[in-house]
Order: sequence, then structure tokens, then C-alpha cells
Amino acid sequence: MSIQAAIDALGKALGDKVQTGASIRALHGGNESYFDEVLPDAVVFPSSTADVQQVVQICAAQGCPIVPWGTGTSLEGHALAIRGGISLDMTNMAAMVQVNAADMDCRVQPGCTREALNTELRATGLFFPVDPGANASLGGMAATRASGTTAVRYGTMRENVLGLEVVLADGRVIRTGSRARKSSAGYDLTKLMIGSEGTLGIITELTLKLQGQPEAAASAICAFPDVDSAVQAVQMTMQMGVPMARIEFLDAECVRAVNQADGRDMPEVPHLFMEFHGTEAGVAEQAETVRGIVDEFGGSAFDWSTVQEVRAKLWHARHNAYYSIKALRPGCRAVTTDVCVPISALAQAVQETAADIAASTLMGPILGHVGDGNFHAALLIEEGNAAELAEAKRLSHLMAERAIRLGGTVTGEHGVGMGKTKYMADEHGEGWQVMGAIKMALDPQGILNPGKVVDVN
Amino acid sequence: MSIQAAIDALGKALGDKVQTGASIRALHGGNESYFDEVLPDAVVFPSSTADVQQVVQICAAQGCPIVPWGTGTSLEGHALAIRGGISLDMTNMAAMVQVNAADMDCRVQPGCTREALNTELRATGLFFPVDPGANASLGGMAATRASGTTAVRYGTMRENVLGLEVVLADGRVIRTGSRARKSSAGYDLTKLMIGSEGTLGIITELTLKLQGQPEAAASAICAFPDVDSAVQAVQMTMQMGVPMARIEFLDAECVRAVNQADGRDMPEVPHLFMEFHGTEAGVAEQAETVRGIVDEFGGSAFDWSTVQEVRAKLWHARHNAYYSIKALRPGCRAVTTDVCVPISALAQAVQETAADIAASTLMGPILGHVGDGNFHAALLIEEGNAAELAEAKRLSHLMAERAIRLGGTVTGEHGVGMGKTKYMADEHGEGWQVMGAIKMALDPQGILNPGKVVDVN
Repeated sequence: MSIQAAIDALGKALGDKVQTGASIRALHGGNESYFDEVLPDAVVFPSSTADVQQVVQICAAQGCPIVPWGTGTSLEGHALAIRGGISLDMTNMAAMVQVNAADMDCRVQPGCTREALNTELRATGLFFPVDPGANASLGGMAATRASGTTAVRYGTMRENVLGLEVVLADGRVIRTGSRARKSSAGYDLTKLMIGSEGTLGIITELTLKLQGQPEAAASAICAFPDVDSAVQAVQMTMQMGVPMARIEFLDAECVRAVNQADGRDMPEVPHLFMEFHGTEAGVAEQAETVRGIVDEFGGSAFDWSTVQEVRAKLWHARHNAYYSIKALRPGCRAVTTDVCVPISALAQAVQETAADIAASTLMGPILGHVGDGNFHAALLIEEGNAAELAEAKRLSHLMAERAIRLGGTVTGEHGVGMGKTKYMADEHGEGWQVMGAIKMALDPQGILNPGKVVDVN
Repeated sequence: MSIQAAIDALGKALGDKVQTGASIRALHGGNESYFDEVLPDAVVFPSSTADVQQVVQICAAQGCPIVPWGTGTSLEGHALAIRGGISLDMTNMAAMVQVNAADMDCRVQPGCTREALNTELRATGLFFPVDPGANASLGGMAATRASGTTAVRYGTMRENVLGLEVVLADGRVIRTGSRARKSSAGYDLTKLMIGSEGTLGIITELTLKLQGQPEAAASAICAFPDVDSAVQAVQMTMQMGVPMARIEFLDAECVRAVNQADGRDMPEVPHLFMEFHGTEAGVAEQAETVRGIVDEFGGSAFDWSTVQEVRAKLWHARHNAYYSIKALRPGCRAVTTDVCVPISALAQAVQETAADIAASTLMGPILGHVGDGNFHAALLIEEGNAAELAEAKRLSHLMAERAIRLGGTVTGEHGVGMGKTKYMADEHGEGWQVMGAIKMALDPQGILNPGKVVDVN
């Protein structure tokens, strides 16, 4: 039993779908965050569920780790093969299998990206709303329970996946869920797989809930004198039940980054970026309500637009904020933190985080999906500078501890991966052992993305 | 190791919280559906999580089954102690522990009913939206993944529980989830427990998401020439993205039952009962859109009201429909079916069901939460009439098979209990074995509600 024997057997079975060249392995050994490069022993490109099943059977027989790979946009090192083995690249399983317009759902393969899906859907009047910013694969988004800017209105992957096809660690293929909108038929295996980061099974197909494209959409930008007033405006907006499509916070430093990268001239103070979806009248009414709230909390420059191009440019700027922030310090790496707290604790959490960063040697703009209580600091460190990395980890640690103390979570949307395992016991207590028991029940050999999420293998 | 030894030990530990009188056991041995009475060996009334923990420890040591009991309104015999053991009645754990108005969430004990919770919440401007009709306990609603009339807008228990406190089969207490609105921190144990029907753990506290009471609400009733036109109107309404708060179908026979029970004079044809929530202008706009759709599909008598009393009476009539239907045949029992299909298959599913019932000897009005594709037939059988029970089971079986064939589920909201276990393999394939593996991992001795959901014990 060995990894090499697995790779030999895979090569015999799957031919040139199995690659062992250094450059292709290197492409599957990096990450968008601060983790060290870890090369897998081989990269396999399945083109069907049957291929995946065969890969799992061969790897199970040889005890070879399997680490699924989508687009490599994970920020917590999920897709790194830290125990060796194979990277299972889903790029060639990227088809949209079926759209059911009447039921507002579709079936896609896991390698399909959210942008590709939405391009395919354009003519149907439907769209898939979950939007983590990066053009991630839908399989990866499900595996990490991703969300992003629109979760405040449409939910996360948790709420938008109706069912899955999954290859288990022993090679069995199961279908979870159904195309019904709800069910009480037994344990919710769909939700168990979502967020399991490839440790319980390999997603080979997803049935997704779709939304109708809104009749009207509008965006707004608004400046605030300080963090607290911006956050309070968000809190009031949510409490009043305004069905915001997006409500994003950017701190002063983040606005500076966006100004520089995008040639904008926003005042360099905290901002909210907002989007409204609904009927024409509904959107106008929502915007009027929010304008009133913004006024009450000292907001200014409420810049509102229904023009598609203006909206697109705004969200392009927001989506690129991560890269704009990195451009503040050329050649740097970003340690991107990710906590989520009850909204009543959000102002405190953001302010204390900002104070910690201000007292440190690092730059760390803060931005977030504040309607959900979720925010990030992008801590910029020099490549290879161990002292700065240690400082970033110290700041991230303070955020994580604070989130738990305030009744929140150490990761709102990026997942556990390599960076957050150490907080699982603190956040979940004995519940983490229960997760381990489930892992042992479904993958006793520990071949599926070993070393992630749980500590049993 | 015996049930009697467990009851003796429980009596010593918990005194008069343990009851073995025949009448109290009988109260915990019946059900609202057609299943035979099964008396538990004892009934235990814990008053704290510590009590529940002690009960589980004692029962685990003696291999004694534990079957949680809420209000006894289950329609699938979930709470029947079919392997003997104790009924764990949560009536004395019914407190609302905490309301966090700023975060729009609350913590409640599992015996708290949804009506009691909403009464307590009235002054806060918030409400808990999930409404299965019966005044069920929130613990029971979570355990069966209940939903009801409002799920089309607000979701089921799945979407409205943020976290749980659960006592496991070995007596450990875990807290799942957090008060954050979203999280990517590991396996979703909250969702795993919701719908597990007391087989994986005993819920001792729930953290619930609350909603702001809508600024405006309105109801409407509308008559249709036939089932198909009513269902098509629903389908169009959902596709146009109208955020219906409720959209309920009643067939002609169901309308007759409601007329008789409530002294109404609705035309005895298929009807939709609807509710709209939003701003004043939003509600008016929604109603206008739906009125247009209804016209298009031949609906008539669009009877619209914003008067609270009219709305209350309407939903009272709908909630009581189950009892109104039973009154069609005095002294009968109802076999209540419960399937959910993709909305494109709803008209076919309802029509074929109606045809099957029409060709049978039984009365069986059809009603349902059609915005979700979920509907019920209440098949009326004479108490003790084996031939009629067999006929009802035959009709129910046809519905379940059809639901699976159409891509749906054998239970939209009532759960598996005793009635639906036989369909689990058909609906889930190998997935049902995965559920069994999870059960074995968390309750290897099989003391938690044995004989339900899975087949491993």
C-alpha cells in the first residue's frame, strides 16, 4: 500500500488524465494565502462520476490521500495535499447538465464556475445568486459553504443547494436531497456535505436553486464619519426588514485602496456599498428607507444609481478590493481573516480589530458583508518575512478569540482549511469530537482531504 | 441491563419526575394518526438539561430506549415508544430563556410551543414565522424539520434554527451552531440534528432566528374552475418572484369541509388562500400582481382584506382544516399523506392523486402548501376498519411512489416516523445506509428513539 502504487494504478486505469509533471503539480501546490507551497504527488483530471469513482477505489485500496481541486481560490489552504497523494482537479467536469426553468433549479458539474453558470443562464431570466467575489467553482463553493456579498438576501451555499451527487470514501455514489423545495425525509446529508471541505465525500454534481432576475436593481454608495455610525446604519436597516441584496462595509484604508486601483475619488472614510433588488417601486421604496436611516446616522454622499454600467463598475471595484488592497503594498501576501458575529456585537468587533491593527506594524484594511455580521481584515505581509507573518497570525488570533467570545464564529465563509483547525475545539467544544466521529464513520481510512476540519486523521 | 432497572434507577435519581401510572402512560401512547396505541414503560418529566443528561446516563447504562415527547401532535407516530422504554416529556422545559431583539434571535427550551413563543415576543415587534398549524413544541418542530403555511416565504425549521443544545446518547452535552448568521466552521451539526427525529440526540435548547413583524399584511381568497388552473397560478406567482407569505391550496371537498365547520359559503371549487407581508405599498403591489395572474388563469372572487380580524379568521379556518375535514365523517381517523414535488410536477401530482382517491371508496380532501410543491390528502377511515385502513395505505403508497418518480420526496414536512421508513431506501438509495452509519457513530447502542428513520437498530 503506497501513494506511488496508487499513482501507477491510476495511470494504468485513466491514462493521460493522470499527470505527474513538476509544473502541473506546482500549479496544484500553491494557494492565494500565506501557506507554504505543498506539491501533490500527482494531479488527476476526471471527466465523469465513473472516473471519480474509479479514482477513489484505487486510492482507497492503496491508502492514498485525495484532495479535490476547483479553481484554487480558497483562502485557507483547503486544497493543499499536506499528506501527499493526488490533487483531483475537477476542471473537466464543468458542464451545466440541465436547467429546469419552470422549477427554477439546475444541475451542474462541480467544476462549473459561478460566472460560467450565470452566463449560461442569462437567456432564461434566472441567475444563481451566491457570489463570493472570486470566480470559484460551484463544487468548491459548496465544499466550503461559501457565501459573499449577496448572502444577506439570498443565503449562502447552505440555502442554495437542493441536492448533491457525492462519491464516498469507499467508492459508493450517493444522491442527497431531491428537486423538492423541502423535505423531512431523514438526516440532511446535503447540509452535512456542504462545508465538509472534501473530507466526507467528493461532490460530482450539484442541484442548485435559482432566482429570477429582479425586475429592477439599483446600487448606492454612502460615506460615514466613523465605523460605528456605518455599522449602526446597517443594524437598523436589517432590523427594519429592508430586503437588501448587498450591504458591504469598507473602512477608510480599504476605500483608499479602491480609489488607487480604480481611479475613484471617494472620500477616504468608512463607506457602505449597497444593492437593492425588487420591483421598480419596491427598489425605490427600499432606497428611500435606507436613505432615511443613513441620514439618521450621519451618512452623506448617498450616491444612488439604477444604471447597469454604474452598478457593474461598483461591484467590480468591490470584488477586486482584495487585489486592490494587495496593491497597497506591491509584492506582498495577504493574510485574510474572516469572522462573523451577531450584528449587535459587530461595531465592537470591528472597532477592536481596527484598534489592534492600528497598534501593530501591519497594514490591514477591513471590509465585510456586514448585513450578516461577517467581516475580514486583509493583513499585508512581506513575502518571506517571518516576523510579519507571526504578527499577522497574532492579529488573526485576536479576531478569532473575540468572535467566539461575542457568540460568533471563527469563519463566516472561508472555511476551516489549514488556518482554523486550531479554533475548532474552542468554538464547538465536544461538538468537534462529534464531527470526528462522523468522519470516522464515513472515511475510516482517512483518505479524503486528510488533516483538514477534524483531528481524527 | 433492563428497562425496569432503568426505571428504578430513574425513580431514585429523579423522584416524582418519573411517572409510571397507567393513565399518564396512556397519554404518551396515543397519536393523532392511525397508528396503534403503544404505551411507554414510564414517563419522565425533566426540568433541566442536567436532568436530561442524568436520564440519558441511566438509560444508556441499562440499554433503555428514550423517546422524546413534545405536544404529541406528530402525524407519523414519531413519539411512540415502539421498543418500550421511557417517554421523555419536555413540558417542564418550556421557558423562553432569552430574547436578543437587536440580533433578532432568541433562546428557548424545547417544550416551549410556537404560540407561547409568539405571545412572549409580541411586545418586541418580532415573531417566529414557522407555522405547522398545530401548536407544536419548538423542540418537536426542529426534530421533525417541520414547516407549514409560511415556509414559502420564511423557510422551514431548517432555515430558522441558528443553533441547538443537544444531549447525546452517551450523556455528553454539545452546543451546535452559534449566534452568528452564517458560519463555515466545520460540519453542520445543527442541520444534522434538525429532522433526526430524536434518533441522534435530545434537543434541550434552541437558538431561533426571528423576523420583524411586517409593516403591513393582507390576505386574499380566490376560487378557480379546476385544480390545474389554481396550480398554474401558483407556479406563475413563484416564477415572478412575488414574495408570498402564504399560498395555500384547498380542493373542492376541502372547501366544503371548511364551509361546514366554519359556517362559510365559499363556492365549492378549488381555492387558494393567500397572505402578503411587506410595506403598505409593497403589499398592495404584490396583491395587484397576483390578481393579474389569477385573472389570467380563470380565477374569480378575489377577496382581499387588510383587516386583522378577517385575516385571523381565514388562517384559523385553514389551520383547523384538518379537524374540519375529520368532521366530514364523525368518529373517523385521518390518514394524512404528505408529499412534496418540484412545482412543475405539482399539477400532475395533485390531479393523479385526486383521480386515485375518486376511484377509491374513501373520502380524501386535498390541501397543501403549494408554493413549495407540498400537499396532503386527508384520507378518512372508520375507526377499526381494517379494509379502509388498507385502502388508505394503498392510496398513500401511490402518492409516495409518484412523488419519488417526479423528483420529489415522500415527506415534505411530517417526517419519517413509523409511516415512511419503508420508502427511505427508494428515496435515498445508498444514502440511507450513510444515515445508518451516522446513527451507529452517534448512538451505537440504539437507545435514542429506536426503530425510527434508519434501520440499523
